[in-house]
Amino acid sequence: MKLKDEKKIGIFDSGVGGLTVAREILKILPFEQIIYFGDTARCPYGPRSKKIVREFSLQNVNFLLSQNVKFIVVACNTSSALALDFLKKRFEIPMMGVIEPGAKGAVEATKNKKVGVIGTLGTISSGSYVKAIHKMDKKIIIYPLSCPLFVSLTEEGFINKKATYLIAEEYLKPLKKKRIDTLILGCTHYPLLKGVIRNAMKKSEGFPKDSSSIENVTLIDSAEKTALDVKRFLLEKDLLRKSDKEPSHKFFVSDQPDKFKKLGQRFLGKKIKRVELVDINKY
Amino acid sequence: MKLKDEKKIGIFDSGVGGLTVAREILKILPFEQIIYFGDTARCPYGPRSKKIVREFSLQNVNFLLSQNVKFIVVACNTSSALALDFLKKRFEIPMMGVIEPGAKGAVEATKNKKVGVIGTLGTISSGSYVKAIHKMDKKIIIYPLSCPLFVSLTEEGFINKKATYLIAEEYLKPLKKKRIDTLILGCTHYPLLKGVIRNAMKKSEGFPKDSSSIENVTLIDSAEKTALDVKRFLLEKDLLRKSDKEPSHKFFVSDQPDKFKKLGQRFLGKKIKRVELVDINKY
Repeated sequence: MKLKDEKKIGIFDSGVGGLTVAREILKILPFEQIIYFGDTARCPYGPRSKKIVREFSLQNVNFLLSQNVKFIVVACNTSSALALDFLKKRFEIPMMGVIEPGAKGAVEATKNKKVGVIGTLGTISSGSYVKAIHKMDKKIIIYPLSCPLFVSLTEEGFINKKATYLIAEEYLKPLKKKRIDTLILGCTHYPLLKGVIRNAMKKSEGFPKDSSSIENVTLIDSAEKTALDVKRFLLEKDLLRKSDKEPSHKFFVSDQPDKFKKLGQRFLGKKIKRVELVDINKY
Repeated sequence: MKLKDEKKIGIFDSGVGGLTVAREILKILPFEQIIYFGDTARCPYGPRSKKIVREFSLQNVNFLLSQNVKFIVVACNTSSALALDFLKKRFEIPMMGVIEPGAKGAVEATKNKKVGVIGTLGTISSGSYVKAIHKMDKKIIIYPLSCPLFVSLTEEGFINKKATYLIAEEYLKPLKKKRIDTLILGCTHYPLLKGVIRNAMKKSEGFPKDSSSIENVTLIDSAEKTALDVKRFLLEKDLLRKSDKEPSHKFFVSDQPDKFKKLGQRFLGKKIKRVELVDINKY
């Protein structure tokens, strides 16, 4: 066994949301080991400028490199949209964002060639999903829409609440009229609101009796699609871990490790043993 | 006219909210000049740790000092709660936060000695309002409560919406039962939600027909109280500006000057001509 085989997959996000990507990766690559960094001292990235998101993302990559990783996943949609190209030019290590896999998933899923994309202000105004989809199929009509409150609602646990349904209805009303058959959840937090989003795309008033039964728009979860691409890439480059010893993961944040540990389990879907604090301004 | 007379009042906040404090200061001190810094690259401070809020606040003060100010107002409730004592020990320049003035306002207003305080997670868990009130009157019973979503709702313009009323009702329900007669709005964003908060303290269901007619709990706006204390202090120390020439103000942010300019006018209540970008990590 070479040392290289024991290198881990580096994943960073503005905070806790990227753990949904980590979860999907570990689901299909259960022997891989991850190093996760959440920039909880400076989250959210969604409302910030390209300049600042690039600056922060650069520091995050520098930190992950100090941890000797073999591959980096930019699990944050806003970073993927605003900083991935910039990062790829500056570093030799292979990197992957969440935009392209999500875009590919939508191109494969749509039948009527009408696709909606929801995300943070940064992701949507970058036009990254539109560019990525049009690279694959120019005929698809895309309707991008930012839903800024979805991140804070999710982080505050306002998932199955009437207020959240009302906000989703208001946000998604213009999209509903477009008769899209596919909707990209272009933010790592949004999969937690799948039920709410499905409901808002279906009907326009009231609190649902049974939101699970409503299903007509295909929701594309970038996390799942990204995990598949990560697996494909690591296989192709012969970078998969060879050992079948119990994998060990490491979690780092720039603020409030205890809060991350508690909140993170909901996103990762498994227990997080330990979270370490990093002074990200040193990187 | 000495040079000292032309020094400005430095004000900092995590973002745009502190402009409500600037507005009140300029209302009663119309010839003063201000230097405002909003840390828009790293806002909000509300959910962050004491350690990080202190680190960020220290950089903000260093920046204001580079602008040659005569006095500093910590317009952010979270910074005032978690970092003011720490800053006062490190700098000679006189400083004032927003907690003490707000606390004093509540002590003066309450008749039944039952006071509520709402604020961010950081402000509430610091216990700063409780300490400040009990220093003045030990008999007052205080009910602190954090309302994390209020900041994002305000920033997204979700002011007079049914969803906001529902969230306010849910948050404030435990406080309503306590029969408080005074409620401190312990976050610079909250005065924009006065109507919503009044309504939630009054009734528990539905969307109000006329929220302006509902008034039984005295709402304490820290911004107004702080401005009064700033005036008193500057008078006492003979630091008031002597010139009656048209004052000129300066606004700085660590990200997105254009967005600040647009959003800021709603908070400041007057036009902002120019906003400059600062690389806050250099301070």
